[in-house]
Amino acid sequence: MQGQANTPWDTRLNSSARALKGSAIRELLKITEQPGVISFAGGLPAPACFPAEEIALATERVLAHEATRVLQYGPTEGFPPLREFLAALMATRGIEAPTERILISSGSQQALDMIAKVMIDPGDVVLVEDPTYVGALQAFRPYQPRFVALPMDEHGLQVDTLEAMLADLAAGGIAPKFLYTVPTFQNPTGVTLTRARRAALLELAERYDLPIVEDDPYGELRYSGEPLPPLAALDIARHGQPRHVLYLSTFSKLLAPSLRVGWMVGPDELLHKLALVKQGMDLHTGSLVQAIAFESCRDGLLERHTPRIRAVYHERRDAMLAALAREMPADIRWTTPEGGMFLWLTVPDELNVRALLERAIARQVAFVPGDAFFANGGGANSLRLNFSHPSAERIAEGVARLAAAIER
Amino acid sequence: MQGQANTPWDTRLNSSARALKGSAIRELLKITEQPGVISFAGGLPAPACFPAEEIALATERVLAHEATRVLQYGPTEGFPPLREFLAALMATRGIEAPTERILISSGSQQALDMIAKVMIDPGDVVLVEDPTYVGALQAFRPYQPRFVALPMDEHGLQVDTLEAMLADLAAGGIAPKFLYTVPTFQNPTGVTLTRARRAALLELAERYDLPIVEDDPYGELRYSGEPLPPLAALDIARHGQPRHVLYLSTFSKLLAPSLRVGWMVGPDELLHKLALVKQGMDLHTGSLVQAIAFESCRDGLLERHTPRIRAVYHERRDAMLAALAREMPADIRWTTPEGGMFLWLTVPDELNVRALLERAIARQVAFVPGDAFFANGGGANSLRLNFSHPSAERIAEGVARLAAAIER
Repeated sequence: MQGQANTPWDTRLNSSARALKGSAIRELLKITEQPGVISFAGGLPAPACFPAEEIALATERVLAHEATRVLQYGPTEGFPPLREFLAALMATRGIEAPTERILISSGSQQALDMIAKVMIDPGDVVLVEDPTYVGALQAFRPYQPRFVALPMDEHGLQVDTLEAMLADLAAGGIAPKFLYTVPTFQNPTGVTLTRARRAALLELAERYDLPIVEDDPYGELRYSGEPLPPLAALDIARHGQPRHVLYLSTFSKLLAPSLRVGWMVGPDELLHKLALVKQGMDLHTGSLVQAIAFESCRDGLLERHTPRIRAVYHERRDAMLAALAREMPADIRWTTPEGGMFLWLTVPDELNVRALLERAIARQVAFVPGDAFFANGGGANSLRLNFSHPSAERIAEGVARLAAAIER
Repeated sequence: MQGQANTPWDTRLNSSARALKGSAIRELLKITEQPGVISFAGGLPAPACFPAEEIALATERVLAHEATRVLQYGPTEGFPPLREFLAALMATRGIEAPTERILISSGSQQALDMIAKVMIDPGDVVLVEDPTYVGALQAFRPYQPRFVALPMDEHGLQVDTLEAMLADLAAGGIAPKFLYTVPTFQNPTGVTLTRARRAALLELAERYDLPIVEDDPYGELRYSGEPLPPLAALDIARHGQPRHVLYLSTFSKLLAPSLRVGWMVGPDELLHKLALVKQGMDLHTGSLVQAIAFESCRDGLLERHTPRIRAVYHERRDAMLAALAREMPADIRWTTPEGGMFLWLTVPDELNVRALLERAIARQVAFVPGDAFFANGGGANSLRLNFSHPSAERIAEGVARLAAAIER
């Protein structure tokens, strides 16, 4: 494929496509898919945690009894029985919403694209955490927002800094389009926004009329500490219906990522616009996978299965924390996530993390350099480790290899 | 849900979302989903044509033998065995392409969004057929192109008019971003671009360095006349590789729409950019549905099954043509499609098609008014009829009802 002459397409790419570059890191990490490499790089669920048999049985039932319906085109808003199921599931998370306020997306990733598509004009301010989920940056960037990145600490987003920033922006006549946040077991840092900060954030939303995108793929995966209400639950408790918060979640971490089924709960008019743009994006999310998700879950699979996932990841998180405590030099720090799939390492400034990655790969262990998660640069002394995919044994061995690579 | 107060989201919608309106027609057509109504409105395949049993067996095999792989996250470019299969399938259509030149999309609809996302800056000229597939207009509109719509006749796009238009645009210093065309059994008109016009179009592409999006969902569904080469085959024959033509196709009409699996064949650098934006759009198309499509087709299902679909739709097309000849007044004209799923009616100017739709629905028959398919207005005296979904008997009855509604 090398050396193909320029085509008429290449010279006509639009401004955002011309700026798009492949990621060197992504190429590097392809090497890490070899079996000998212990990868802390991906964000993959453990395959042993897929309820494969239940999914297979559900699929069999769906195709035996409802083939015509689940193979045909379906409504853009989603497969009606699944939306109904999700309305009930949302109530268990404290998010009271009728079926009509559930909108299905092709994974949470598509939800991010949909949101950007209805909200962002070029140059608009979008508030993000620093660091934040890199896929959100990828989803938003083609719409050419101006990212304002807000500092985090071990208690999550620094809400007082956000307040100062909102005041500054307002003084300049700027109303940010929305804040994007992963308040619970954040990707990439693993930290969780405290209860007090959740309340304070909702107060700020009220005061500044600030829309908030709450991305919650991991909330069910808590291994220690006390459950906290989603921002959406606080928002609905105050207003009786969603007002400031658009809530996103997904089956990717509870059933299987390959279904590509996510959903949103939010204000009616916004959902209406989101459904309209979704129609132009993919007509609808596949009815078959939605029916499989529904049929798998309708008899209580999530209640039975989620504790199994928690048990596996809990052990792996503990294995990683123990290995870090055992292996790492004193000047390396890390977060202690109460759930989720990731943990965040901060290393001394003089350590070059990109060079460290090359040394780590030479020792057959991989991670993602932290700078990838910063909207406007920075984070050169940080890295993300995933603990959901490798086994506890491989985690111990991998952390030892990483410590050896760090040794100066 | 009525009467919810404005939320902070509503006041912050971007310029393209503010312009988005729900379709009154779409609302009206929801009524037509009632069982008594004979609908020529949708674009649905016949459920009897879904190879449901083969899909069920394939799914069983895939989940029994490869659960881990097909439930996990997968590569953005697509499920490797499916890409390989499609490269071989493309060769049967005269489109020689290595596996690396196949890019999977979540249905053809997503391909249209992806293309717009890398090609269109606001104000860019995009050439479309007049009328054209309404989903393409929906996919492109959020990127705010300027549509230049080109007339069609019973031989497809008028290539000489395109030539004059390209010359005009070039004189004004404008290079259109691309031409979007459905050359074979077009949606909505059912007409097919002749062999001579295909050659002439490729010559024009050469002369004006014009990128062409060839959307080919129906090409395999020919009931009469001689097969014609896709534009992509002509392009590759000339250059040894794709240069002007990006080819789109889908399993929606051959297996089942609900899989939402489509694919593209095109120039390498363009495909690379498309894959990069797709990552931000949905990470990847679901591996499970891709694996199901592959496993269903690997042993020759399409060769066995496509003739069955052709036989059913052939009978229905003939039933519709016969009923139209029998029932319609002399001043109504229609196209005679050699394949596909649609047929196009032109009525005298004094007949108000929107009012006709209301009368038709009162008589329990539905269609889509033609003006929906025109990028820049027009087509008020036309309407689209679908013949793939209703049975031959229902078609005869529905056309009789429509003729009665037309009677003045």
